[in-house]
Amino acid sequence: MRLGKQTVTFEKMPYITATAAIVGPYEGEGPLKDGFDRIIENDDNGEKSWEKAETKLMQDTYHLLLQKGNTTEKNIHYVLAGDLLNQNIASSYAFRDRECSYLGIYGACSTFGEAVGIASMIMAGGFAEQIICITSSHYCSAERQYRYPLEFATQRPPTSQWTVTGSGGLLLQKDGTGPMVEMFTAGKIVDQGIKDANNMGAAMAPAAADTIATHFVETGRKPEDYDLIVTGDLGAVGTDICRELLKQYGVDVFERHEDCGLLMYDRSKQDAHSGASGCGCCATVFSAYFYPKLRNGELTRILFVPTGALLSPTIVQQGESIACIAHAVAIAG
Amino acid sequence: MRLGKQTVTFEKMPYITATAAIVGPYEGEGPLKDGFDRIIENDDNGEKSWEKAETKLMQDTYHLLLQKGNTTEKNIHYVLAGDLLNQNIASSYAFRDRECSYLGIYGACSTFGEAVGIASMIMAGGFAEQIICITSSHYCSAERQYRYPLEFATQRPPTSQWTVTGSGGLLLQKDGTGPMVEMFTAGKIVDQGIKDANNMGAAMAPAAADTIATHFVETGRKPEDYDLIVTGDLGAVGTDICRELLKQYGVDVFERHEDCGLLMYDRSKQDAHSGASGCGCCATVFSAYFYPKLRNGELTRILFVPTGALLSPTIVQQGESIACIAHAVAIAG
Repeated sequence: MRLGKQTVTFEKMPYITATAAIVGPYEGEGPLKDGFDRIIENDDNGEKSWEKAETKLMQDTYHLLLQKGNTTEKNIHYVLAGDLLNQNIASSYAFRDRECSYLGIYGACSTFGEAVGIASMIMAGGFAEQIICITSSHYCSAERQYRYPLEFATQRPPTSQWTVTGSGGLLLQKDGTGPMVEMFTAGKIVDQGIKDANNMGAAMAPAAADTIATHFVETGRKPEDYDLIVTGDLGAVGTDICRELLKQYGVDVFERHEDCGLLMYDRSKQDAHSGASGCGCCATVFSAYFYPKLRNGELTRILFVPTGALLSPTIVQQGESIACIAHAVAIAG
Repeated sequence: MRLGKQTVTFEKMPYITATAAIVGPYEGEGPLKDGFDRIIENDDNGEKSWEKAETKLMQDTYHLLLQKGNTTEKNIHYVLAGDLLNQNIASSYAFRDRECSYLGIYGACSTFGEAVGIASMIMAGGFAEQIICITSSHYCSAERQYRYPLEFATQRPPTSQWTVTGSGGLLLQKDGTGPMVEMFTAGKIVDQGIKDANNMGAAMAPAAADTIATHFVETGRKPEDYDLIVTGDLGAVGTDICRELLKQYGVDVFERHEDCGLLMYDRSKQDAHSGASGCGCCATVFSAYFYPKLRNGELTRILFVPTGALLSPTIVQQGESIACIAHAVAIAG
C-alpha cells in the first residue's frame, strides 16, 4: 500500500530468514569480526585478479546464504545483485550459469537497500516466495576502478573512505520467521554540488537526510519509533553533515543514529580515514551486526538507509558534481 | 501469479499508455525514421561530451514521455532506468534532482526488458500507479567505453554491431488504455564460452533461446500464440544462431521472429555490419515500431525479448567469456 510519493508499506511483510557475510582480512581485524561468517585469508581470495576475487566472494556468500537459510537454488525465484565495478561484473559473473533468474541492480553503495526494497515489493505483491539480495565490493578492485591502481601508492586525504572488501546477502521469504520488512522509502537523486570524489560522505549526506526526512513525513512516524536509524556509509564527515541537515528539517536523530561506515573499522587503530564505504559495507554490517540483534530482540525496529554516490571517474573528470541517492527500509524484529 | 520458476503472469495487467523515442542522425536515416518522435541533428546533442549528449537524450525522452502520456512528474512513483556506461551515469545524471524515486537497473542491452518486468510486478502488486521505464545508449560513448575512442579509427569486423544512439521509454499505468503486460519471464545468466567482444550476437543467442524456450515450457503457450517474437539486438549472426538453437529445443520461430537489431538500419545502404545493438536499440524500436502496431490492432500479441551481453572491457582483457541474459515480456495489444 502506498503511504506517499516515495513510501510503500507491506500488509504481507516479507521475512528476512537468513543473512550471510564474508569479508576481507582488514575487515576481519575490526570490531565486528565475531559477527562475520567467514574472513578470507588474503585479499586475492585465491584468484588471479581483484575482480575475480570479488566475484568469488559473492559466489561463496551466496552458497553460504543458501545453506544458512536451509534452502536450495531451485527455491530461489530471483537474485537481485549489484556491485561497484564497471558493468556490474562481480554480480553478473558470480551468477553465471546458475539456475535462477537474475536481476542486476545499480545504486552504488545504496544497492543493497534498493535490492531489498524492490524484492519486498515483488514478494509482497505475490510474485515470489524466496528472493536473495546480495552485494559486494572489494578495496583493491574499487581503487583501480574509481581512483588509481594500488601500485601507484597515492596518498589519500582524511575525508576519503575505505572500500570494504566483503559481500553480504539476505534471504527474503514469504513465509518463515525472523525480522520483517515493514516499509520502503525509495530515494530521489540529490546533488548538492560536491565535486570532491575523495569526500563522498559529504556528497551523500544530503541524499540520506532527504530520504530519512521524507520517510518520517510520509509515514507519520518519528525517530523515537525506531531503536536506531542506520545509514550505509556516510563515514565521519557525512555522518555529522547528515545529522545537522536532519536537525534543520526538524528531525533529531542524534541519540539514535549509527552509520555502518563507522562501525566496520576501529578508527583508533585502523587507518581507514573517514570510515568504511562500498556496496559490501552496509550489506555485511547489517548481516553480521544488526540482523542478529533484530533476531534476538535486542533491537525491535530499525530504519536501514543504504547510501550511494552515483559517480563514475569519467563524470568526475568532466567536472561534474556527485549525484547521490539513499533508500530507506523499515525493518521490525 | 507464478507459472513456473522463471515466469509470472499478471491478473491485473499494467497498461503501456505511452512511449517515446529520440534517436541520433544515423538512426534517423534508417527505415524506422517516421516512427521516432525526434531525430537529433548532431551526435553531440549540443553537449560537450558524448556522455552528456547521452544524458540529455534520456532527459529529453523522459520529458517527451510525460507529455505524450499526458502526465506530470508528481504522478510518477518510480523511474526504472539504465544504460551501458560505467556506473550507469547517463541514467543517474538524467534524473539528478528530479522529484521522483529512482531505481537504477543494469542488464546491459536487456535492461529495458528487466525494467518493464520489475515495474510490472511492482504495479500489479499494488505498489505504484505510474512508472516510467527508460534506457539509452550512444554510439560514441559506447565505443570508447567498450572498445576504443573513435579518434583511434579502429576497423570493425563484420560480426560487430552498431550501438544505437537513442533513448526509448514507456509509461506504465495501473489504469488506462493501451497494450498490456501479460507475463514476465526473467532470464538466467548464460555463458556458452564466446570470448569475442566483437561478436555479441553469438554470445547472446543462447541466452535468448534459453529464455524463450523456458517461456513456452512454463506458460504452456506456443509460438503461434504470438504474432511475433521480438528479440532485442541479436543482429544477423545472433538471429541465425538463436533460431537454430530454438529449433533444437523443438520451438520453431522462423516464421514469426523479428530482431530489433535488424530493423533499425537498412543494412544494404548503411554500413552497420551485423546490425544494431545497445540499451537504446530495443527501447526505441519498441517505442517507434511495435507499440504503434499493438495500439492500432495490427499486432495482437508479441513476446518482447531484450537481450544483453554482461561483459566489461576488464573481464574481456582477463580472458573471460561473455556472460549474457535475456528477459521476456508478453505484451497484448
